[in-house]
Amino acid sequence: MAETNRQWILAQRPTGEPTHDDFELRETEKPTPDANEVLVDLSYMSVDPYMRGRMRDAESYAEPWDVGDPMQAGAVGTVEESNHPDFDPGDTVVGNLRWADYVAIDGAELSHVRTGDAPVSTALGVLGMPGRTAYFGLYDVGEPTPGDTVVVSGAAGAVGSTVGQLAKLAGCEVVGYAGSDEKVRYLEDELGYDRGINYEDEDVRDALRDATDGVDIYYDNVGGPITDAVMDHLNVDARVVVCGQIAHYNDTERPTGPRHFGNLIQTRARVEGILVRDFAPRFQQATERLAEWVASGDLTYRETVTDGLENAPDAFLGLFEGENIGKQLVKLD
Amino acid sequence: MAETNRQWILAQRPTGEPTHDDFELRETEKPTPDANEVLVDLSYMSVDPYMRGRMRDAESYAEPWDVGDPMQAGAVGTVEESNHPDFDPGDTVVGNLRWADYVAIDGAELSHVRTGDAPVSTALGVLGMPGRTAYFGLYDVGEPTPGDTVVVSGAAGAVGSTVGQLAKLAGCEVVGYAGSDEKVRYLEDELGYDRGINYEDEDVRDALRDATDGVDIYYDNVGGPITDAVMDHLNVDARVVVCGQIAHYNDTERPTGPRHFGNLIQTRARVEGILVRDFAPRFQQATERLAEWVASGDLTYRETVTDGLENAPDAFLGLFEGENIGKQLVKLD
Repeated sequence: MAETNRQWILAQRPTGEPTHDDFELRETEKPTPDANEVLVDLSYMSVDPYMRGRMRDAESYAEPWDVGDPMQAGAVGTVEESNHPDFDPGDTVVGNLRWADYVAIDGAELSHVRTGDAPVSTALGVLGMPGRTAYFGLYDVGEPTPGDTVVVSGAAGAVGSTVGQLAKLAGCEVVGYAGSDEKVRYLEDELGYDRGINYEDEDVRDALRDATDGVDIYYDNVGGPITDAVMDHLNVDARVVVCGQIAHYNDTERPTGPRHFGNLIQTRARVEGILVRDFAPRFQQATERLAEWVASGDLTYRETVTDGLENAPDAFLGLFEGENIGKQLVKLD
Repeated sequence: MAETNRQWILAQRPTGEPTHDDFELRETEKPTPDANEVLVDLSYMSVDPYMRGRMRDAESYAEPWDVGDPMQAGAVGTVEESNHPDFDPGDTVVGNLRWADYVAIDGAELSHVRTGDAPVSTALGVLGMPGRTAYFGLYDVGEPTPGDTVVVSGAAGAVGSTVGQLAKLAGCEVVGYAGSDEKVRYLEDELGYDRGINYEDEDVRDALRDATDGVDIYYDNVGGPITDAVMDHLNVDARVVVCGQIAHYNDTERPTGPRHFGNLIQTRARVEGILVRDFAPRFQQATERLAEWVASGDLTYRETVTDGLENAPDAFLGLFEGENIGKQLVKLD
């Protein structure tokens, strides 16, 4: 009796906002691992804003996904069968896998999950790619000094919720933008943000000027009018960490906006992009520190969990509506 | 017989492109130096794009000039009378003086001119503020490595003409944008640029893609469409030195354009403003090195000299028309 495997295929490239028509759930046979391959039974998969870029046929830091091919995702799962010396059945692993029930993949593409006492799902969030992105983006690119004012956009998301707490650990004042009162309460009451701004209700410029006399570090997950407001309120020698631009990922034309280079001369600010894979040699360092802070309670996290592989596109589409608080996951068991 | 002094007054704040109505030449008595002051007979004054910012009533890195007040300028001159222990009559000095025949100023605001064998006018150009701006902007902010491709906008101007040569000294390939065939010939034949692009005649994007596969350092003196073209052609880990934005200094509304932050994630490029005064503790180092290179012939320069204080506004207005090659000066004798 051949068991089946379901996996999501990129059915077509989205134009603007993705829709369900762009995804196709295809049933195939459960894969059999070849030499050196490991068969993984997926437990959680991640949906992330960067995936919108992979659906686009454009030059980028990673190859676009091909139409008709399975979609990829960071995922954790359990080894069911292994032809690779580093993995045994029952091991919990993480890697860049697929939107699928099962994956057979070269063991070289997998890592053992090391989360200490935290749930394995954190390997996709606070102890995974988003947590490390926050860590290296803030500490290595942002270079915080105690007393700095740090502003975070997308502050209640997987990356932003970690950035704010890491900034507090570094002795900074922290202001966050989020899109609902519930999220703002989360920032202020649970994450230790000094001030949350609800960008749906408040004027993004006035609220920032109320919150601070000037910004030393801006951690940008969003782009758009929030970024424009912060760029006009930078202190001398400010650092701007460009991590995400979700406000623009569904744009069908090149986005335009106010030019910011004049501000950079005034302030001698530095604007720099962050891509976490550039820091791969130090992933272990970051993950260990983040895990210690989670264990000590210095670093908290939330997960928004969507149940069932069949609902993965909904979880992904929800990112663009700001439906998640913290890390958006899909539970696959 | 009281001798007279002429000086230019900011008559009104320009709207958009400055005009002659914004300047008033006023005749006063030749000043008498007070305690600690030095009376300077000006030989050359500098006109620079940054002055457009001082004419504007806006928050900036320096105070705006007041309407009705004398206009300031970097200038060199000869000490005629000194009440300051560091200066004697006949000394050649440089400082932030005025658009004027004579200035009486605290000696603490003056420096002795040290140009070695070069003419004193170079203290306003290749061995002065523009030369040091090129030096620190390229070497400290741009951080060139041999083999890098460096693109310079405003390449035939006072700063740009120096940047290109300094980049060649650092072992880089250098491409420059300038606004006429004469300037492009100057870049390629005299300054050692590997390729000059006439932005008036050539498509700024196509020409750049012809000239190079990708840009490691962009030294931006200009802004506008040239900058947009270069920002879309950056290599991974590129550095963008934002030195000037002359294309926008006469804008009456906040300039808009394509958003570049997405590119910064793709390339992890760094964009950073440069203001030369931040490097004041190292001015002497830079000036000495620049003077050595001028003496050895490794660094050449040109000056565009306008005769007579009465023509200073013309010299200034000409900057926005790209009338100068190299440093634009006004000769005051």
